[in-house]
Amino acid sequence: MNVIPVILAGGAGTRLWPLSRDDKPKQFHNLSCGGTLLEETIKRLLPLSPEQIIIVTSRMHGDLSRKELEKFNVPGTVLSEPRPRNTAAALLYAALYAAKLFKNSIMISLPADHHIRDNDEFTRILREAIRQAEKDRLVTIGIKPTYPETGYGYIRARNADGPVITIDAFVEKPDIERARQYFESGKYFWNSGIFIWKTSVVLDQFRKLLPAHEKAFEPLSALDPREIASNDGRAWEVKRGIYDAVESISIDYGIMERAENRVVIPGDFGWTDLGSWKSIDEILPADPDGNRSPEKARAIFLNANNCSVFTENCRVSVVGLSNIVVVEAGREILVIDKDSSQEVKKIVEMMKNK
Amino acid sequence: MNVIPVILAGGAGTRLWPLSRDDKPKQFHNLSCGGTLLEETIKRLLPLSPEQIIIVTSRMHGDLSRKELEKFNVPGTVLSEPRPRNTAAALLYAALYAAKLFKNSIMISLPADHHIRDNDEFTRILREAIRQAEKDRLVTIGIKPTYPETGYGYIRARNADGPVITIDAFVEKPDIERARQYFESGKYFWNSGIFIWKTSVVLDQFRKLLPAHEKAFEPLSALDPREIASNDGRAWEVKRGIYDAVESISIDYGIMERAENRVVIPGDFGWTDLGSWKSIDEILPADPDGNRSPEKARAIFLNANNCSVFTENCRVSVVGLSNIVVVEAGREILVIDKDSSQEVKKIVEMMKNK
Repeated sequence: MNVIPVILAGGAGTRLWPLSRDDKPKQFHNLSCGGTLLEETIKRLLPLSPEQIIIVTSRMHGDLSRKELEKFNVPGTVLSEPRPRNTAAALLYAALYAAKLFKNSIMISLPADHHIRDNDEFTRILREAIRQAEKDRLVTIGIKPTYPETGYGYIRARNADGPVITIDAFVEKPDIERARQYFESGKYFWNSGIFIWKTSVVLDQFRKLLPAHEKAFEPLSALDPREIASNDGRAWEVKRGIYDAVESISIDYGIMERAENRVVIPGDFGWTDLGSWKSIDEILPADPDGNRSPEKARAIFLNANNCSVFTENCRVSVVGLSNIVVVEAGREILVIDKDSSQEVKKIVEMMKNK
Repeated sequence: MNVIPVILAGGAGTRLWPLSRDDKPKQFHNLSCGGTLLEETIKRLLPLSPEQIIIVTSRMHGDLSRKELEKFNVPGTVLSEPRPRNTAAALLYAALYAAKLFKNSIMISLPADHHIRDNDEFTRILREAIRQAEKDRLVTIGIKPTYPETGYGYIRARNADGPVITIDAFVEKPDIERARQYFESGKYFWNSGIFIWKTSVVLDQFRKLLPAHEKAFEPLSALDPREIASNDGRAWEVKRGIYDAVESISIDYGIMERAENRVVIPGDFGWTDLGSWKSIDEILPADPDGNRSPEKARAIFLNANNCSVFTENCRVSVVGLSNIVVVEAGREILVIDKDSSQEVKKIVEMMKNK
């Protein structure tokens, strides 16, 4: 069966401002020294010999996405959305396109902004997931928590042993109290946002659980594949009409929380959702004082510890400080206490309001 | 008698890196929002109706200095030194030039990097100093200490009352213990580095106390004024010979510490030696949280207090931090704990060694 990775690359990555900006969000940046996040995402899918890689993103980021695809010798398509309408719309768009291309295919849907340490184990888990998806199951990868994180959604397992586990429920981001309970119970996984299913199976689920979505996308599914992927006049108008009308719903909420025959496969491959400046620490090696920077020559630390520096054009010297992050990009400099990482959104909002 | 201010603008200002750099040291920067430090220094001398303003600096900074002079409708000359040889050489050079121009003149010698809050009082004190200098005295301005500073030299007074006080001794920068004693005794003043004397009187002192200096400069004093100020072939060669030979001695050490008939006039006009990033705080207004920046629109503070931002090209956002300074200039960013201000020199040395 044809394997079709669908990479969701439409996010804004506001909490990684100022590196991540509207014109170049985080997935197009090299944060880990191993290439851009999108490039790394593509690379780690290649061992599965994908028939075609689909990237769903905004029109503004179509060219950037194509450039990432062109780094590899693999067929690929960029599908541009007229406006962000959450993951249900993005994945329905990709599924309709995949269904036109191939009679039988398995989609691997995943975000473009994850970091994975053990790519071999990641491949092994995805192969298992494909085997499960071939049995018409909706498969997701659950990450075994290593600490009580409050920034992720969780999946509650019905039984927590075995390589394939029935899902009891999807759970919202918890407060720290609940996060601790989840972590200690051993019955919860972090929701990775990675889904594996037959294209035909997920289209069935849209018909059943999100019929308004399916109906909204009808004009697109009537087109031929070239037109579906096109941003030319008529095709774009059709897409605009759909995206103006369709509700903004996540695939988790719209399908996974309510579907039957859904399973979670536990994954333990060093997964990090690169959501905030603090999270980047987990993927960068530290010097003996705990200081980090992807470009060592452009960060100088004197009497500093546990500090991180990310810089686009300048050299940064940090003197006599602890636990801060310094980011320079696009004529903006952010200097922030690491434990205030979640406040970055506020700064961006303050600026937009000015 | 002709009043000739001599502004010493040859300093490197390393502790104000990265704003202050070899190609543009601190005196050519606008730190207080009131113009560059050199510009402010010139401006506050104008009420004394100077006959001529002399700026002594390096050849590299001649053009920058001339540009500052040209902002004002006052005769001025820039004297370029082939290499820095401390204040005795610089002031002897200026004195020789002034003596050629005017038969009788009073020099007001002062650094280019001070900030003075009350310019009227400054003028009043200088007028008093000129009156004292007319009596063939070597006059310096002593600043009444407002706290036990360890970064300044001190002047011990023989008697600490009256507008004109005999000097007992010049004292080196003290440790904090001594600084406290000095501060509490009421008999010490900060050494401002501002000197007022007749040109003829200081030349006499050179003859008496620094005869090697006087001898070294003989080839220059043989030239006409235009040549003395020139950097053309022959004149430059003459200066190079002198500056290669002459010892690096401060005017304090070479003349003032050993001269007779020296007096200090207490000054209380809101004086700050802008030597370190911490010192700049004293001249910038703070917002209610104690945050400061000369350009408010380019500094954003969120949950921050007692932080200062200086920026050349970028906007800076400081989040969740206290008591830090952020400086961006010339593709360098410095993020430093305020109380580590004196460490900046080390950073600059580290970079030069790399």
